[in-house]
Amino acid sequence: MVKEVIKELPDEKIVYFGDTARLPYGNKSAPTIVKFSLENAKFLLKFGVKFIIVACNTSSSLALPTLKRRLKVPFLGVISPAVKEAAQITSNGRIGIIATRSTVASSSYRREIKRVNPHLKPFLQACPLFVPLAEEGWAEDEVTLKVARRYLAPLLKKDIDTLILGCTHYPLLKGVIRKVLGSRINFVDSAKETARQVRMILAASGLCTSHKGQGVQCRFYVSDEPAVFKKVGRSFLGKRIEQVRKV
Amino acid sequence: MVKEVIKELPDEKIVYFGDTARLPYGNKSAPTIVKFSLENAKFLLKFGVKFIIVACNTSSSLALPTLKRRLKVPFLGVISPAVKEAAQITSNGRIGIIATRSTVASSSYRREIKRVNPHLKPFLQACPLFVPLAEEGWAEDEVTLKVARRYLAPLLKKDIDTLILGCTHYPLLKGVIRKVLGSRINFVDSAKETARQVRMILAASGLCTSHKGQGVQCRFYVSDEPAVFKKVGRSFLGKRIEQVRKV
Repeated sequence: MVKEVIKELPDEKIVYFGDTARLPYGNKSAPTIVKFSLENAKFLLKFGVKFIIVACNTSSSLALPTLKRRLKVPFLGVISPAVKEAAQITSNGRIGIIATRSTVASSSYRREIKRVNPHLKPFLQACPLFVPLAEEGWAEDEVTLKVARRYLAPLLKKDIDTLILGCTHYPLLKGVIRKVLGSRINFVDSAKETARQVRMILAASGLCTSHKGQGVQCRFYVSDEPAVFKKVGRSFLGKRIEQVRKV
Repeated sequence: MVKEVIKELPDEKIVYFGDTARLPYGNKSAPTIVKFSLENAKFLLKFGVKFIIVACNTSSSLALPTLKRRLKVPFLGVISPAVKEAAQITSNGRIGIIATRSTVASSSYRREIKRVNPHLKPFLQACPLFVPLAEEGWAEDEVTLKVARRYLAPLLKKDIDTLILGCTHYPLLKGVIRKVLGSRINFVDSAKETARQVRMILAASGLCTSHKGQGVQCRFYVSDEPAVFKKVGRSFLGKRIEQVRKV
């Protein structure tokens, strides 16, 4: 997500927070995810941020209404941008969504898809082992392929033409997912569309920075030791993350 | 562990706390595990407990010295009981230990084994996917067997005759581990030996209760919603857990 936001908004100052001490969120209950998300947002507000992107599908699915109600800053989650893009690119209206167990249970994707276009047909599938497999570094592994075959078998029967990768880690597994679902499936990775929407919202509300050409300014904070984050973060950002602070 | 403690000490009142909102601990850093363990122990102290069992290998490996130094109650972790039992049952002195990444990195097992008997040879192997596989309910699955084959391959070459299951979830995977390592390997599950040692310590220090025959008194607390805990807890305890409170 940070990579995409930098691309869309190279002049904005970015503060990133990763709750590495308490992750993963994907199997946790709604009240716990809401509580943690509020704490995380309050931490970011200390930096005087003007806009918060909830860059986690589980948190977006379960905590966004409470965040918007309780805190006085505009928020954007990743569900609505992902659905918007999927609705645009699908030809047959049959959209698969893979996500964590808590995201699937929340019905957030189903609701948003029906809101955008009641004729679209969503098919949801929880893939709880995808995050640990990606974290183990087995993204291209035959074990992961076997797990993907099992999780995705129900979707194969649904004639979907578009698949939303409904968890931040899943783009790392694109290779095996493509092997199982075939080359004609459109992938929707919410990061790009979310970053694009943030740019439009900031522009529309006159919130864009007037300080141009200062170069990328990005600060990373995590709740556990930075070592592991640096390693995983590198595979997302595509370059080394130098400065990460623990809070 | 609760099951074994009830067997050894049927008259004692037990207060259980499971930090389900922040688990798993196995990939987290030492400072974070120490911080969480201190918070958990302080929660239990509110009930006036006279003894605390640190029933998590990762927490025992990384937090026990700090817990003992900072809090005024006797503690027992699961590392030393497991090592004691392994040292007794091994014939060739070659002991395998499977555990989380953080437990392996801590060297707790290596240190304790060398302390008990410098001639024993420990062989450690991290198995990060075992906990998510067990939680997914795939304990007997061919995917789990495949993962076990890969993780345990290095141990197969070491001629071990004893294996310590160095994480609370691993006993659920005994079946596949036995398939990979063969029928002649001794398994050490620290729960039994830990419960036995608690009984001995309480007796030796005059801390045993004098209220006998009241029946089992056990209270369960968790930090996330109780629903998931009840399901997993059932496979550990072998019976339904009725009352679980969220804190």
